[in-house]
Amino acid sequence: MDDKIKALLDELVIANHVLANEKVVDSFGHISVRNPENSEHYFLSCSRSPEIVCCEDIMEFDLEGNSVDGSTLRPYGERFIHGAILESRPEIQSVVHNHSLSVIPFGVTNTPLKPIIHTGAAIGRDIPIWDIYDNFGDTDLLVRNMEQGRDLASTLGGASVVLMRGHGCSVVGSSIKEATLTAVYLQISATVQLQSIPLGNVRYLTPGETEECTNMFYSDLSVDRAWENLTARVK
Amino acid sequence: MDDKIKALLDELVIANHVLANEKVVDSFGHISVRNPENSEHYFLSCSRSPEIVCCEDIMEFDLEGNSVDGSTLRPYGERFIHGAILESRPEIQSVVHNHSLSVIPFGVTNTPLKPIIHTGAAIGRDIPIWDIYDNFGDTDLLVRNMEQGRDLASTLGGASVVLMRGHGCSVVGSSIKEATLTAVYLQISATVQLQSIPLGNVRYLTPGETEECTNMFYSDLSVDRAWENLTARVK
Amino acid sequence: MDDKIKALLDELVIANHVLANEKVVDSFGHISVRNPENSEHYFLSCSRSPEIVCCEDIMEFDLEGNSVDGSTLRPYGERFIHGAILESRPEIQSVVHNHSLSVIPFGVTNTPLKPIIHTGAAIGRDIPIWDIYDNFGDTDLLVRNMEQGRDLASTLGGASVVLMRGHGCSVVGSSIKEATLTAVYLQISATVQLQSIPLGNVRYLTPGETEECTNMFYSDLSVDRAWENLTARVK
Amino acid sequence: MDDKIKALLDELVIANHVLANEKVVDSFGHISVRNPENSEHYFLSCSRSPEIVCCEDIMEFDLEGNSVDGSTLRPYGERFIHGAILESRPEIQSVVHNHSLSVIPFGVTNTPLKPIIHTGAAIGRDIPIWDIYDNFGDTDLLVRNMEQGRDLASTLGGASVVLMRGHGCSVVGSSIKEATLTAVYLQISATVQLQSIPLGNVRYLTPGETEECTNMFYSDLSVDRAWENLTARVK
Repeated sequence: MDDKIKALLDELVIANHVLANEKVVDSFGHISVRNPENSEHYFLSCSRSPEIVCCEDIMEFDLEGNSVDGSTLRPYGERFIHGAILESRPEIQSVVHNHSLSVIPFGVTNTPLKPIIHTGAAIGRDIPIWDIYDNFGDTDLLVRNMEQGRDLASTLGGASVVLMRGHGCSVVGSSIKEATLTAVYLQISATVQLQSIPLGNVRYLTPGETEECTNMFYSDLSVDRAWENLTARVK
Repeated sequence: MDDKIKALLDELVIANHVLANEKVVDSFGHISVRNPENSEHYFLSCSRSPEIVCCEDIMEFDLEGNSVDGSTLRPYGERFIHGAILESRPEIQSVVHNHSLSVIPFGVTNTPLKPIIHTGAAIGRDIPIWDIYDNFGDTDLLVRNMEQGRDLASTLGGASVVLMRGHGCSVVGSSIKEATLTAVYLQISATVQLQSIPLGNVRYLTPGETEECTNMFYSDLSVDRAWENLTARVK
Repeated sequence: MDDKIKALLDELVIANHVLANEKVVDSFGHISVRNPENSEHYFLSCSRSPEIVCCEDIMEFDLEGNSVDGSTLRPYGERFIHGAILESRPEIQSVVHNHSLSVIPFGVTNTPLKPIIHTGAAIGRDIPIWDIYDNFGDTDLLVRNMEQGRDLASTLGGASVVLMRGHGCSVVGSSIKEATLTAVYLQISATVQLQSIPLGNVRYLTPGETEECTNMFYSDLSVDRAWENLTARVK
Repeated sequence: MDDKIKALLDELVIANHVLANEKVVDSFGHISVRNPENSEHYFLSCSRSPEIVCCEDIMEFDLEGNSVDGSTLRPYGERFIHGAILESRPEIQSVVHNHSLSVIPFGVTNTPLKPIIHTGAAIGRDIPIWDIYDNFGDTDLLVRNMEQGRDLASTLGGASVVLMRGHGCSVVGSSIKEATLTAVYLQISATVQLQSIPLGNVRYLTPGETEECTNMFYSDLSVDRAWENLTARVK
């Protein structure tokens, strides 16, 4: 393994710990990163909780979810979320799947999740909700194959976040850091919105603000500062 | 004591710590396990808070709640919850009794607790509420004898969870891990439901989804992952 | 100082730490205990946050709030809460004054705080609200002299808890442990009630249940178990 | 650097850690202090999260936001908040800018944030809301230059707190301790108000109480006690 890949996998492990420490994932949830040397492959932990993932747990998959590194570890049953989204969105390098408690209410009601604070703008203005029931009827709600993964990716479309009814959400980014930070601030934004709605007459960000705040949020200045802080907490 | 029993009791101690660490129990609450070598006996800590239970605290009782190991430790006053449920449900191996703060509101109002997320499906769709007042009038709400325990077990029926009005709940499982994880995700599910209800028009899991999600939740894959994570947090 | 007093003051210091650790007090709030050898005197820390109180901080006061041990430490400005309540209630040995966040809403609205869970029954059914404005007009809301303290004690009457509008509450007990545990479960009970009210049609404990649950809560079995646990957390 | 300045900067670093530990700031947010030897200069960390700021990170700026100490560190993009407020309010020595989650709802709805507890009175009765959109249209909501900073300072006027719509708030004080403690109790007060509003008919502090409680809150007795406690938590 070359140094670049080694550093990327180290970052993926840290991202697992950050997501757990910020309570974005609990015993479940996962984060992947595309192989920068082979865009048809991605890296993802074996079936283990993010809080305790270590370097030895990282597996490599093709976009269909087949292990390609000869590993005999047990993969996540829902790895198809990652492959299908990476397949449909070439510009995306990293995918977070999680069950943030403050986000789930917006997937099971008719109340749209919307940008309400500048640090949460990156979630976007039109956040789709994927209901697995629509095309697959009664299931265990898990994304268990590529057909379901592609259906999810289709609902995600060009958005940054897709809510999954009764389940959680998936968040994408052009890097591990972006996907992680967007998932962290998605949770924060949803918390603020849950607290604001009972007060009535909520003013959300305008379309122009959402765009400008997203650019700001993804600037090196902002990403580096937050990343330095969140990783310091788990070291 | 043979090695199998020793391992089981070690697991019971760990489950006490997990339940405390996840805030499912506070200074009160307890978890039992049936003796696999004598289905008429069960193991339960002496009267001590779960967070600080250790191996030496575990007592053995018959289903009527009599100490059978010659221990002179003081037993929990509510051990009858465990005996009566284990008596009425031969397939159940473990019982958790707790006062999860997010669960109690559903026992004191007319709002039914229902499955809203896939990881919480194991709580079941028709969750009974036991009101000790109905058959016993004014009491201290504790389950202090087998008559009350059997009344509770009767209300539980074939369900996985029984809410206890103004008190808490009891949760059953076919193993220590199952009972513990169900209690943990019952608390999470209730939190999500409390946050969702103010948004209105909540969509709950369908009956078919509830069944499939429960099977998934109790699969080895899921149980082992969560258990590894929750126990790592208390080590 | 004899051993009995020494042990009592050690317990008072631990109670300070427990109240801080359970978030019942923050930088403000305090707990006192009557001198068992002189019922006209009580012990209370000097003006320091409970989390960092140590044995050397404990002062002795007469019921009027005068330091009687020659200490030159700075006393709490609100020590009159303690003296006035101990003066009016000979059976009371310990007083906690705090600003529990979940309790304050019930002092500034017309929604009565009521027993809703068995472990919170000791707060009592008719919890008075003291509004310093009624008899003293605009103030800084602090209980700064015996006249105000006695007015507060008068409103408390024979209750276990008195809410203080826009300020917090005071809680009494027949021992340090009882006052501390009642303050801890007052906070928990208020949290449950805040979560239950939006669901509507809340069923509270009956008068008989409140009395029986209070007796249970103050039994040695219950007090000892909770005290062992809460003190283990701060050691 | 003389000893007085050295001590002040040490205090500024501690204040950064306190604000992070109390969750008033997360990866973003900052606190400044005016140079007591040159009222046209202020000290502020370079672009780093408060939780990990150390002495070497502190930079010195003129009120226009120009670095005056030859530092090559990267400054906060929003330092203009600090310069503009210090420029307009000669009596102010310290400014906190943060994104407290419980405060944001009051900046995006028509529900006014008002003093509800004595320890939160220092936030004042008429808390202005600055909406950057009013004079600058669509932006990334950040205060990126002196024109925006002066507009914010103008809305702040003589108040202690200014809410920033969709963004957070800025809090001022006559010392590092005052600004820090006001920011901490602003968050607490907002939390209490969010919990009280659903109960209806909230009674807020009177104007006279607000003034008297503010004086009390800013007394040495109160400031020193809270500061000793909050700094002990981060040591």
